[in-house]
Amino acid sequence: MKITILGNNSALPAYGRHPTSQIVSLPGEDIMIDCGESTQVQMQRYGIRWRNLNHIFISHLHGDHYFGLPGLITTMSLQGRTAGLNLYAPARLMEIIHLMLDVANTELSFPLHFEPLPAGEAKMLQDAPAYTLSCFPVSHRIACHGLVITHKTKGRRILPEMCMRYNIPVEHYEKLRMGQPYIMPNGVFIDNNLLTADAPAPKKYAYCADTLYLPDIVPYIQNANAIYHEATYMEADKDKAILRYHSTAAQAAAIAKQAGVNKLLIGHFSSRYKDLEPLLQEAKEVFEATVIAEEGGVYEL
Amino acid sequence: MKITILGNNSALPAYGRHPTSQIVSLPGEDIMIDCGESTQVQMQRYGIRWRNLNHIFISHLHGDHYFGLPGLITTMSLQGRTAGLNLYAPARLMEIIHLMLDVANTELSFPLHFEPLPAGEAKMLQDAPAYTLSCFPVSHRIACHGLVITHKTKGRRILPEMCMRYNIPVEHYEKLRMGQPYIMPNGVFIDNNLLTADAPAPKKYAYCADTLYLPDIVPYIQNANAIYHEATYMEADKDKAILRYHSTAAQAAAIAKQAGVNKLLIGHFSSRYKDLEPLLQEAKEVFEATVIAEEGGVYEL
Repeated sequence: MKITILGNNSALPAYGRHPTSQIVSLPGEDIMIDCGESTQVQMQRYGIRWRNLNHIFISHLHGDHYFGLPGLITTMSLQGRTAGLNLYAPARLMEIIHLMLDVANTELSFPLHFEPLPAGEAKMLQDAPAYTLSCFPVSHRIACHGLVITHKTKGRRILPEMCMRYNIPVEHYEKLRMGQPYIMPNGVFIDNNLLTADAPAPKKYAYCADTLYLPDIVPYIQNANAIYHEATYMEADKDKAILRYHSTAAQAAAIAKQAGVNKLLIGHFSSRYKDLEPLLQEAKEVFEATVIAEEGGVYEL
Repeated sequence: MKITILGNNSALPAYGRHPTSQIVSLPGEDIMIDCGESTQVQMQRYGIRWRNLNHIFISHLHGDHYFGLPGLITTMSLQGRTAGLNLYAPARLMEIIHLMLDVANTELSFPLHFEPLPAGEAKMLQDAPAYTLSCFPVSHRIACHGLVITHKTKGRRILPEMCMRYNIPVEHYEKLRMGQPYIMPNGVFIDNNLLTADAPAPKKYAYCADTLYLPDIVPYIQNANAIYHEATYMEADKDKAILRYHSTAAQAAAIAKQAGVNKLLIGHFSSRYKDLEPLLQEAKEVFEATVIAEEGGVYEL
């Protein structure tokens, strides 16, 4: 699983930073999380194509999280996309998209499968063979959700040297992954544990969207390999964070610590901060494994 | 009058080019024409602030001409704009803006004065002391208007040397501009023609928006100091131009020639053309005083 940051600023573009968007890449499948204005330009800049983009999640309907979506879907349509696109978003986003298509007298070239997010509730959005997508509610000025992406592991891990030693035919590997033993042509039984090891743990990434400091989200994001948590303000501006339903860098770090995650990405920075280093330092004092979600940065889990 | 190009591509961003937007600057007053996605980023890039921006004209409701508007007005509101903003656009744009504000549970910090463009008709939109804005209909797949901006001249032009020779007090200059004579303290009458010259001709700029080749627009743009005309395609792709209600570079030049203008800016280039030089050459063969509307380019009239 690989996360590419396309935008890490809050509210509006500033200092070359853009509003929120990120891409989570699984083998052959990209998931976009939020789509602020200029996301399609950022995709071009960082070499993200839409061919693998099958899912777009919009956390909430503040413009800095979706004003790039109408342009992106129009572009995919103009370029002749035919594959369906899954859009998970607050229900009223479809009103906006329908209205924009209607005034332009346009139809999309591909089916848009819309799944409204249940205000205030958690929900499994996709349970695919290789991954799951599920949303959870956060606390913002309007209805807002975070997203958990889990990349499932495909059975047990083959030990190639052991399999070669026992001359196991490659066609039998899939059965080994499922935990079956191998019976040699001479009838000798070889235990699966000799030939395979435990599967690697599934990879889990959680995007915590725009939210007040909210320990209620910890159960959803527990033990993730990485989480993204907004850090709009520093502790010195905590009053503004509370007023606007945002978090501070220290609060983002406190959530990461409580959830026992491996890594914290912080973003959604206020335009009052040109230099992001103090936000990073504030978070690291609480949770050392913190990094700035840099635009163009690629984070492998 | 000064024109700054913020975006010169059609339909979608490509090769570092952006969808349509331009700024026409008069003394103390900026007028934006169209507002494709990323316009606010382009404004930052080219040093255009919104403090003088009092008028926004949206030619039609294809996304590449207005998807940057929600972000721009949201930004002005977040930054505390209080001055009213005049928005001239097809009527249904207000439905979209109202819906976007409603789903975000937001109100703008400033009054938005909306003037719907009359489909298929010409109209004077502003008749201010220093300038006029008037729209005229063009032929596109949906209702679309061009815009004429005329910078009026303020009365006759003072001849400073002559005024100094006759010791005319500076307080009297405004009356001289209005064509009045000067009577010296000794009663001698000095004819206005001795002290002033004819006013310079008003400056006229016409933006011809997205349109099929349409000689009907010539009377509106006649004798302009400069016009912008789209040149989405080359003659070799004329069939596409007709099908999509666009013009070729040669057709843009033919309009400029018929209208007897001083200068032609071409833009709204199809993403099929990475190199724009052939479009320029095609236009120049018909109308020599043609230039590419370069992003970041500033054209003084």
